[in-house]
This record gives sequence, C-alpha cells and structure tokens, in this order.
Amino acid sequence: MTWQFEHVTLGQRVRFGTGEAAANLALEVERLGARRVLLIAEETSAAEVVVSKIDVTARCTDVAPHVPVANAERARTQASEVGADLLVSVGGGSTTGLAKAVALTTGLPIVAVPTTYAGSEATNVWGLTEAARKTTGSDDRVLPVTVIYDAALTASLPDELAVASGCNALAHCVDSMWAPRTDPINQALAVEGIRALRGGLREITTLDGREQMLYGAHLSAVAFASAGSGLHHKICHVLGGAYDLPHAQTHTAILPYVLAFNAPAAPQAAARITEALGTDLITLYDEVGASHVLRGVPDVSEAARLILPSVPPSNPRPVTEDDLAALLNAAQAGQNPTEWSRA
Amino acid sequence: MTWQFEHVTLGQRVRFGTGEAAANLALEVERLGARRVLLIAEETSAAEVVVSKIDVTARCTDVAPHVPVANAERARTQASEVGADLLVSVGGGSTTGLAKAVALTTGLPIVAVPTTYAGSEATNVWGLTEAARKTTGSDDRVLPVTVIYDAALTASLPDELAVASGCNALAHCVDSMWAPRTDPINQALAVEGIRALRGGLREITTLDGREQMLYGAHLSAVAFASAGSGLHHKICHVLGGAYDLPHAQTHTAILPYVLAFNAPAAPQAAARITEALGTDLITLYDEVGASHVLRGVPDVSEAARLILPSVPPSNPRPVTEDDLAALLNAAQAGQNPTEWSRA
Repeated sequence: MTWQFEHVTLGQRVRFGTGEAAANLALEVERLGARRVLLIAEETSAAEVVVSKIDVTARCTDVAPHVPVANAERARTQASEVGADLLVSVGGGSTTGLAKAVALTTGLPIVAVPTTYAGSEATNVWGLTEAARKTTGSDDRVLPVTVIYDAALTASLPDELAVASGCNALAHCVDSMWAPRTDPINQALAVEGIRALRGGLREITTLDGREQMLYGAHLSAVAFASAGSGLHHKICHVLGGAYDLPHAQTHTAILPYVLAFNAPAAPQAAARITEALGTDLITLYDEVGASHVLRGVPDVSEAARLILPSVPPSNPRPVTEDDLAALLNAAQAGQNPTEWSRA
Repeated sequence: MTWQFEHVTLGQRVRFGTGEAAANLALEVERLGARRVLLIAEETSAAEVVVSKIDVTARCTDVAPHVPVANAERARTQASEVGADLLVSVGGGSTTGLAKAVALTTGLPIVAVPTTYAGSEATNVWGLTEAARKTTGSDDRVLPVTVIYDAALTASLPDELAVASGCNALAHCVDSMWAPRTDPINQALAVEGIRALRGGLREITTLDGREQMLYGAHLSAVAFASAGSGLHHKICHVLGGAYDLPHAQTHTAILPYVLAFNAPAAPQAAARITEALGTDLITLYDEVGASHVLRGVPDVSEAARLILPSVPPSNPRPVTEDDLAALLNAAQAGQNPTEWSRA
C-alpha cells in the first residue's frame, strides 16, 4: 500500500429534516445571532415557507444562471446598504452561486437551503460570468456555514429533472474515485453517496426517495470538492463549452463510457462503484428512465482533439485522442459500454 | 425513512504519508506562514525526526497524562514569552492535549503529529485535570488545523500496545453507530474506520498495517467526535472513574457485550459492523490476541447502579440496572457474547 494523500475537510453544519426547513432556519439564525438577514431567492413558494419563522430585512430576487457579475454587484450593494449580517439562500445552484458571490467580497456568512441536487452548497467553489466568460475560484469564505436540507422543498421538482440532476450527482461520486486528489476519505464518502443516490433514483417519486437524493447529492458535492475533476468532468466540461450541450444529459451520457474505460485500470474503484450501485450503471439508467445516448456533438474527431489537453495526467488509464474519439463514438451510438470497452 | 439529523463537520487538513512527516511539516509551516514554532513533545527520536526540516523557536517537554492545569499554565506562559505563532505537537493523546490546552487560551493554531491511535488530533475536545478532577469541553479553537500522519513514527509502539490502542479506536467506531448524535454521515465514516482497523489489526506487525491503523484511528475520532458517547463509552467511563481500570483493556473487554446487547435492537447497524469487520468481533480479537475478559470490577451490582444514570436515553435498546449487571457478569466470565445475548 503506502498511502500518500492530502485531504482537506471543509467545516460545515448540516441540518437535515423533511418539513423542518423553517424551524431549522430559525434555529440557525438564533445560533448565529443574526439580526439583519438578506434573503437571496427567486420568488417561490418554497422560499416563503423557509423564511416563515424568521425576520427578513431585505430580499434579493435577482437570480440568473451562471451568476452574471452585474447581478453579483447589485446584490453586494444591497447587502451593504441594508447592513446585512447573514445571507440566506433558498434555491438551486444559481441562487447559491449568487449568495457565494456576495460572500466572496463581503465575508458575510451564508445559510444555504438548496432545492435541487446541484451540490454547490457543500463546496467552497464560486463562479461568475461576464460577457459570456466564466471565472471560477475557491475560497473558504464562500462555503456556507450551514446547509439546511428539506426534501419537501424538492417535491415540486419534476421527476424527469430530478433524475437528470441525480445522475449528475452520481457522476460527481463516480468521477471522485479516480480524480486528481482522490483519497481514501473522499472515496468512502463517494461510495456512500452512490448508495444513497441509487436508492433515491429508484424511489424518486416518493419523499423517502427525495430524501435519499438530497443526502446523496450532499455527499457527491463533498467528495467532488475534495477529489477534484476527473476524466469524466473534463470531457463534459469541454463538450459543454464547445457545443453548448445540456449539462445534466451530457453527464448522464458520458459517465457509463468513462466508467467502462477506466474500470480495467482501476478494478478496486470499479468494484466499489458496482457494489454501491447494486447493479451496473446501464441497468440503473434503464430502471429510472435515464438515457445514455450522447447528442449534439457535430465532430467527434474535433471534440477528441479539444478534450485531450484537459485529461488529468493522474487518470488510472492513459488516454489517447483515439481513445476519446472511440469513447464519444460509442456514446453517440448508445453502445453497451461494457461490450464496447472489451472490444 | 424520514431522516432528521444535525451533523457538524470539523474543517481540517490531513497530510498522510509514511516517512513524510518532516517534509509535510515543513510544507505546513510554510503554508501557514509560521515563523515562531513552539514544539510540544517529549524528548523522543520521533520528535527530532519530525522537526528536522523546520526552525523550532522553543520546546516544551512538560507533558503529563490528563494535562494537569499547572503544566498547561507553564506551557501557555512559554508560548507567550517566546512569541509563538504556531504550536507543533508530536506524540500521543497527552501531548496533543497539552497543545490543545495552550490553544484554548491563546488561539494559536496547532499542527498535530500523532504517534499513537488516540485520535485526539481530529477532535475539538479538550481536557484538563486539577487535584484529580478532570474538566473537559469542546471548542473549535483547539481543533488542530492540520494533522500529519506518518506510520513510520508508530513503528516503536509495541505490537501489544498497538493492538490495545487499535481496539480502543474500534470501540469509537462501533459505539458511533448508536451514539446520541449518530447520523448517516458519521455512520459511513465509522464503517470505513472499522474496515481500516480490521485490516490494520490483522497486519499490525507491518508498516502497511500501521498505516491502516492510523487511517482507521483518524476516522474513529472523526466519527466519535461527531456522534458522541454511546452506551459503550458511558459504561467504560464510569468503570474507569470508579475503579481506576486500564483504559484500553476495559474498552476491549466491554465492547463485544455492548455490541451483542444492542444488535437485536439495531440490526442494520450490527450488520454493517459485522460486514466491515469481515467476521465477528470475538473472532477478530482471537486472531489479534486481544482479551475480552473484564477485570478489576469488585462489585458488579454497585457498578451497574453507578452506570445506569449515564445510559443515553437514545440507546436503541432500553437498558435496566439488571441488564448492566448481566452484561458486566458476562464480560467478567468471558462468556461468548452472542450466546449470552441470546440467553
């Protein structure tokens, strides 16, 4: 063996309880001694429920995808003008992202109440866009001090979207098993995340299933933030940027082929993934109605060429441009991944 | 299902590498920008190796069991007199404990380099003794910012002591499965800890085994700090205090009977423990030469009466004074725990 690793655990409080978000938020506002809450949330009934037991000093509803710098600036000004001492975000990744943008420059603490499985609430990563260019970074000031999970808030998320978002979280877990900073600790959390997401995906129509999804999505974000982007995320990132592909569906389509490609070179990781899934990925996809056919890549050779420089040198199996083209071709054809990797 | 839990993750950096402690400490001193290191360590060759690549401003060797207040005061004065900006501790639980006592009042950061499996380095719990009275508390200021694990430093720990210390860590993991603040996250970490300790205990004479022990001990402390003291630790704590019993051996002796007692009421936890152990606890004890016979309790009825008020109300199985007496009798007789619990 002789392990060598560096693992950073991010300090954070999680309050998990279905139907308990309002009560849990009130507890946190009291614990933190906050007196002037800036609520960051689109106008949703979920947000109204969540803040029903606290005083809200001001509201920012200026949420937009990918956190445009202009929106961030307006929210920062608002936070300063109202003298906010706590940011409460209620929503998906864009909402959490806006709160993080405010925390980045103001140092204000965030209590995040996520309503999707995006996972941003459990990481110290921020992102901003200006003139279609995205800047990202990591800073412990943007890590929410507390996350409040309440599966009842995700009930309005349609099953199909929930499955896509859940498969995205699953990809975070799977890719963590061989990402550049993978280590035994984030692997253990990733495996637990896979187990929860497997259960959640299969019962997505129930509240129990939605609870497991939230729990799994939390772990997927913790594992991913710790382990970094592996081969799978590098491929999806390049494809998304070059061809403007839909995020979750692309992840769902690529994951089985990356798993099949890496499995022979990472047999222990592959075995743990399969054990936690309780089956193979394609069978799970079929059970829950997720597609593994890649769409929207006009030129596979070009894509392979674009991806190659991003491939992590630490990937357990060396990757050539031809490998990438073959992987993308197999995903486009919807080939059985295991049969493809054996050929 | 319908989970409800509050989980606090403590933020901390872990650098793990056999033979790498000196290099890793130099990296941390640089990362933290520390210029005046107070080394807290008994005069050991391990301490010399660890600090061989950094400048040490002053040394405190005033380490004693249970951190006497007088020692803590002297170390605090020294830290202030030399203008220390970083505490580096190298040693077992008493050494880490002394560094924590200094951090508690000074707010100085700690880099902890543990040489046993005590686990104190991964918790925010401090303890001080004055006139044989122990005071404990938890404060995030005493949580080491970084822990450096190096199995080579544990090579001088005799196998027998390593087994006892490892069984103690195992007890942290097992008890975490039903402790008052048990939750899915600390359970997952506890199960991973059991798996590592099982492997480590079986290969205790090798460096690989010692690595797994350190890794498992880290997880056991993380899980235990999060989940709190369960039935097992309450029993051992009262026995230790009342009859001055040896710490590790008492834990080793009590654990199988608590596990057997709780298992029928916590079948899922018991199944996960057994799966992670790969066998039952007694078989593992026999393999590694650990004893499960309780010694040194003069009056079982009195002990049961003393323990009862400490039993966590959340224990999965209700506990009576008679249950406790039966458990202690069985442990004293070294009965087979499974057969005992079925009777």
